[in-house]
Amino acid sequence: MELTWLIPVAGAASVLYAIWLARYVLSQDAGTAAMQEISGMIFEGAMAFLSRQYRTIAIFALLTAVVIGVVVGLVSDGVREITNTGGVISYGAVVVKPETEGLMTGIAFLVGAFCSGLAGYIGMYISVRCNVRTAAAARHSLKDAMTVSLRGGAVSGFLVVALSLIGVSSMFFIYSDVLDKPREITPFLIVGFGFGASFVALFAQLGGGIYTKAADVGADLVGKVEAGIPEDDPRNAAVVADLVGDNVGDCAGRGADLFESMSAENIGAMILGVAIYSVTGNIAWIMFPLVLRSFGVFATIVGLTSVPMFTEAGGQQNPMRPLNYGYYVVSALSVVGLFIATKVLLGDDWHWFFFCGIVGILTGIAFVYITQYYTSGSWRPVREIAEASRTGPATNIIIGTAVGFETTALTAVAIGTALIASFLLGANAEVAGVPAFTTGIFGTAVATMGMLMSAAYVLSMDTFGPITDNAGGITEFSGAPEHARQITDALDTVGNTTKALTKGYAVASAGLAAFLLFSAYLDKVKERLEIPLTAELPIDLSNVDVFVGALLGVMLVFLFTSLAIRSVGNVAGAIIEEVRRQFHEDPGIMAGTSRPDYARAVDITAKAALRAMIAPGVLAIGMPVVVGLVFRYGVSELEVGPNAANAGWLAVSGLLIVGTIGGILLATFLNNGGGAWDNAKKYIEAGELKDEAGVVLGKGTATHAAAVVGDTVGDPFKDTAGPSLHVLVKLLATITLVLAPLFVA
Amino acid sequence: MELTWLIPVAGAASVLYAIWLARYVLSQDAGTAAMQEISGMIFEGAMAFLSRQYRTIAIFALLTAVVIGVVVGLVSDGVREITNTGGVISYGAVVVKPETEGLMTGIAFLVGAFCSGLAGYIGMYISVRCNVRTAAAARHSLKDAMTVSLRGGAVSGFLVVALSLIGVSSMFFIYSDVLDKPREITPFLIVGFGFGASFVALFAQLGGGIYTKAADVGADLVGKVEAGIPEDDPRNAAVVADLVGDNVGDCAGRGADLFESMSAENIGAMILGVAIYSVTGNIAWIMFPLVLRSFGVFATIVGLTSVPMFTEAGGQQNPMRPLNYGYYVVSALSVVGLFIATKVLLGDDWHWFFFCGIVGILTGIAFVYITQYYTSGSWRPVREIAEASRTGPATNIIIGTAVGFETTALTAVAIGTALIASFLLGANAEVAGVPAFTTGIFGTAVATMGMLMSAAYVLSMDTFGPITDNAGGITEFSGAPEHARQITDALDTVGNTTKALTKGYAVASAGLAAFLLFSAYLDKVKERLEIPLTAELPIDLSNVDVFVGALLGVMLVFLFTSLAIRSVGNVAGAIIEEVRRQFHEDPGIMAGTSRPDYARAVDITAKAALRAMIAPGVLAIGMPVVVGLVFRYGVSELEVGPNAANAGWLAVSGLLIVGTIGGILLATFLNNGGGAWDNAKKYIEAGELKDEAGVVLGKGTATHAAAVVGDTVGDPFKDTAGPSLHVLVKLLATITLVLAPLFVA
Repeated sequence: MELTWLIPVAGAASVLYAIWLARYVLSQDAGTAAMQEISGMIFEGAMAFLSRQYRTIAIFALLTAVVIGVVVGLVSDGVREITNTGGVISYGAVVVKPETEGLMTGIAFLVGAFCSGLAGYIGMYISVRCNVRTAAAARHSLKDAMTVSLRGGAVSGFLVVALSLIGVSSMFFIYSDVLDKPREITPFLIVGFGFGASFVALFAQLGGGIYTKAADVGADLVGKVEAGIPEDDPRNAAVVADLVGDNVGDCAGRGADLFESMSAENIGAMILGVAIYSVTGNIAWIMFPLVLRSFGVFATIVGLTSVPMFTEAGGQQNPMRPLNYGYYVVSALSVVGLFIATKVLLGDDWHWFFFCGIVGILTGIAFVYITQYYTSGSWRPVREIAEASRTGPATNIIIGTAVGFETTALTAVAIGTALIASFLLGANAEVAGVPAFTTGIFGTAVATMGMLMSAAYVLSMDTFGPITDNAGGITEFSGAPEHARQITDALDTVGNTTKALTKGYAVASAGLAAFLLFSAYLDKVKERLEIPLTAELPIDLSNVDVFVGALLGVMLVFLFTSLAIRSVGNVAGAIIEEVRRQFHEDPGIMAGTSRPDYARAVDITAKAALRAMIAPGVLAIGMPVVVGLVFRYGVSELEVGPNAANAGWLAVSGLLIVGTIGGILLATFLNNGGGAWDNAKKYIEAGELKDEAGVVLGKGTATHAAAVVGDTVGDPFKDTAGPSLHVLVKLLATITLVLAPLFVA
Repeated sequence: MELTWLIPVAGAASVLYAIWLARYVLSQDAGTAAMQEISGMIFEGAMAFLSRQYRTIAIFALLTAVVIGVVVGLVSDGVREITNTGGVISYGAVVVKPETEGLMTGIAFLVGAFCSGLAGYIGMYISVRCNVRTAAAARHSLKDAMTVSLRGGAVSGFLVVALSLIGVSSMFFIYSDVLDKPREITPFLIVGFGFGASFVALFAQLGGGIYTKAADVGADLVGKVEAGIPEDDPRNAAVVADLVGDNVGDCAGRGADLFESMSAENIGAMILGVAIYSVTGNIAWIMFPLVLRSFGVFATIVGLTSVPMFTEAGGQQNPMRPLNYGYYVVSALSVVGLFIATKVLLGDDWHWFFFCGIVGILTGIAFVYITQYYTSGSWRPVREIAEASRTGPATNIIIGTAVGFETTALTAVAIGTALIASFLLGANAEVAGVPAFTTGIFGTAVATMGMLMSAAYVLSMDTFGPITDNAGGITEFSGAPEHARQITDALDTVGNTTKALTKGYAVASAGLAAFLLFSAYLDKVKERLEIPLTAELPIDLSNVDVFVGALLGVMLVFLFTSLAIRSVGNVAGAIIEEVRRQFHEDPGIMAGTSRPDYARAVDITAKAALRAMIAPGVLAIGMPVVVGLVFRYGVSELEVGPNAANAGWLAVSGLLIVGTIGGILLATFLNNGGGAWDNAKKYIEAGELKDEAGVVLGKGTATHAAAVVGDTVGDPFKDTAGPSLHVLVKLLATITLVLAPLFVA
């Protein structure tokens, strides 16, 4: 088929590009002995955490794979072929037996889980190597430091995209061409890949997020607040754990998050393509998402390569500007790729889908501005929080909470507008025999895929954040010259912005994708009920099962958030106790004559974080399953009326979709509220706030102390609970997709 | 018809009982001159605020009534009679012309608004008179003080119930019997009454809630924190405003809240009865809610009268115990009333509905325990927050937030279970010709009405809270003896618990009622589309209009919360500035030689609070209308496919129901989180927390200061945003009911 050849080429290109970047980074100057020492400690701590975390996840994943395989094998009726006889769509013979379906789903799950883990591992390996080289380069110039750190981040960005693209397409070709299953049912067989990816991402993001913020909060409370020593001071035993945390939370966690986003949304879009394929018989509708992503890879390579061209050698340029220019290059090239892909693949009325893709690309850009407005010190929201700090921590928290809730408004309007626009545009495309409803939903899928074309670029910018954050820590810790610290500080501020942008991007993509993933789940239910994929299957909100499922869905995201936030508090408590113990038992630490036991603090944090990730993780995976089973086997037995048999999958539908809506908006509150608190503190530290007499209310004032409380509260919001919620909503989609046979009577 | 005679009897009985209670209260000793002076200032401040607030609301209400009347008159096709020809339900001739429908709806709106305002006014008048008498009685004994304050609260409780019962039933009889409209369509004509009640309740709760918490936060920050003087100290100019706030927020606000709950849910339940009436022709299905509430009035009179019997004359009895015993008396008698009402009115299969009512009564009791578990110092959640205060305000806020989110879990499970149980029980009742779906929904209505039978009792306990709170303030302010302050403190603690219970009760009733009100809205849509009321009309969550409506619904409750919380912060800032100015300009205030200008502080707070209530109020009313219009006239024009014409009411349905789910759970977070923070502070003040050496971490320690931050943050959560959200979700239901013709093409 036309353009399919692009998929392996793009996969290979991204791997080669990542290798080239990695070699570049590793060839740079690794800094002084002092730098290498601390960098070595971070490396060891991060790798130790990751290998321990992966061991835990691997055990869970293996168990889950077996359970899924057995459950699907037992409850499914197998997969039937889809036939089109003179325009009438129906289901033919069983072409995949239940036990084969279970086996294939289980294997796909393991491959997805493995790829996700691998992406996180390699990305973090390079990041941890890159931070010391960034610190070394910062002794020379901003441009050098920026190039090293951005390229280090790009290794992660490209590997995540490459592994997702290669993983999904390989599974597809192996199951369809090698194992000879009909191509139109293969997307249903590889949904396990998406579930595996979400599964690992959930634990990676939870464990990493709890680790990083517990270490951060703990180190701050025991160091800055209790002992009165500066941030990143070598006398604080928790400081290495804090630096390790940046890597395991922001690099490995976020990488796994976007890996599963791309994989799950790609597979979901392919399933929606099956509906149109079943009428038109044209496989291009199924392959389209993979082709579009391939174009995205090429656009991103060009965009990233162009960034150094926009970077001024010396001068006072804001490092954010070249990054923004690079993003525009990626967006412009994405439009070109979108044009080619839609024109070649999507039939005569392709232009409507081209517009849908444009909607997606514009949504991505819109979120760059929305996030900046709410989390940067240049506008009203952050300043309002800083002002409120004058009257103490209570008003800081009150106004910060108000700002956080407010940020959901533009987010919801932007996502809603994008969904309606892409649906209406898609519905206008005439594809013979396909109802407008179906092309409309496909339109939302095109918008989602259009937005995700720039994912590698966004992820590169994101990983740039923890690298520069770490570089700053290494600079401080190793006693490097003052001007180097200034450079890493400037990069760190940009890194905070790019991290916030990535979260906005992740929320927007989750919002756009929610509708597509939900529709994919419904297609799976239709397939089980042997209803044509182009028929409508209403999920009636006035049905009591759907309503209660919806109520429980929103409750799930609230309870999950509660567990995630509380874990940070508890683990931070464990770190504080350990550092206090070290100060107490060895007075030489405070005097600077003896070194604290960093490794022990790292170890205690790791163990506590891994224990703490279990409860929210199990809740997220267990609750949809329990609700589905209770309604299918409990409520539906007692219910009377025509809908009784459907109680299981109806309740799950309500839980899935309304839980997703609640999760997206709650994540927005947590991410942006946390980011705004953080930057309100930075705003005050930058000396921007003055009292009535014109005296700067900077560090050391009660106003600053109030802002520090807000920043600390925001930490678990924005770096633990918020990002974990992104993963949760997509996990809900993939788990219900995979286990749909269990909920359909 | 049998038992209908009970309705006017119950209405008259509750008015007479309220008059008797009011005379009792007013005949009590009004205390010393010092007490009367401060009480007079509170009275003046409260009445001045209320009359100013009512003027503002009256203007808005008049405008809204005209707009509703005109809009309904213009867009409606009038109301048709419902005919049953040999079991086939259809719509006959227009019996109410569009312009008459508009006029009747507008008048009903104004009557509802007036009754709501009247209930708030009288209740507050008595409360403000009662607080000084409670303070006077506290010089003698706990039992005396408790009897006075509880009877004062009961005036409010009974008047609210009486006005709602008399209002709804009078409107019904006037429209049906006097103006001679068919009885089965009358419930649709009086929905305006519910909207009017919600309209006033929203502004009363918002204005009062902002006033009370801004005054509280402002007085605390400028007095306790900045000037270092105790709570309720006469030198603080904001202290009278704080005492006024308790009355306008907790008395008038909560009264209006429960008034509209009862009215709206009563009318909604009658509309659901119309569906069964249209088949059976038995008017009892429509009258049932009014009869059941009449039984509730008698049960409550007996229960309240029994409380002094359970109160020990001297001794160390916890005042909560006699209140709990009284609640059990009300519940037991409610079961008897429920038995009679269902057996006489609801056909041969009445016992299923009897069980539904039992579910409702049990749900009410369940929430008493759930709320106590999460907000009382005897259990894990509050203690956990107190413990977290050891490491400062940041951990206090983090753990408090986690507890707040956690409380949504049991709430959602309890509401979900009650809904499923009452639906399944109702669906089992066989009523010839009526589908199980319809009797199931009626079952949820019976459960809601069963729960609301005890509303007058709960509201009496609630109003008891601000009365005792004020009595404590008067005691402190007037320099009354120490033992009197101890008695008012003991009552105040109980008052905090009863206030929390009322909020739990309000959330539970909103949750149960959500489904019933939503179904009533759908019945209105069916009536417009001329679909039989017993037919199912799916609201398909996988429809993009419903989905985006749902997204905007959750966004609405988040944004509304943001505005409400922020208002408190802003108004508190205005008070702080005024008190600072007074301290600054007259040093005699701090020395105790001159009196601060209390009236000015009261006035500034009132003006600022009234300005601040406009934005969230307009958002709440405007957003469902704007969404409905945009989708009906914008999106539906662009949409293709069979659902295009329905875009307006479908989007509104999504907004209404998912917004309600989000609102209920967010209110739970805000109410219980705030309550837990408050009681964590009290737990520390009671000396229950000790450090490792066994030293009490009480007032004056950093731990206590951290807990005060949490308490202050919780104030706008639990007393402004949370209670306003209860009203918002019911306002959404009544506004969409009234304006349904505008959204249906």
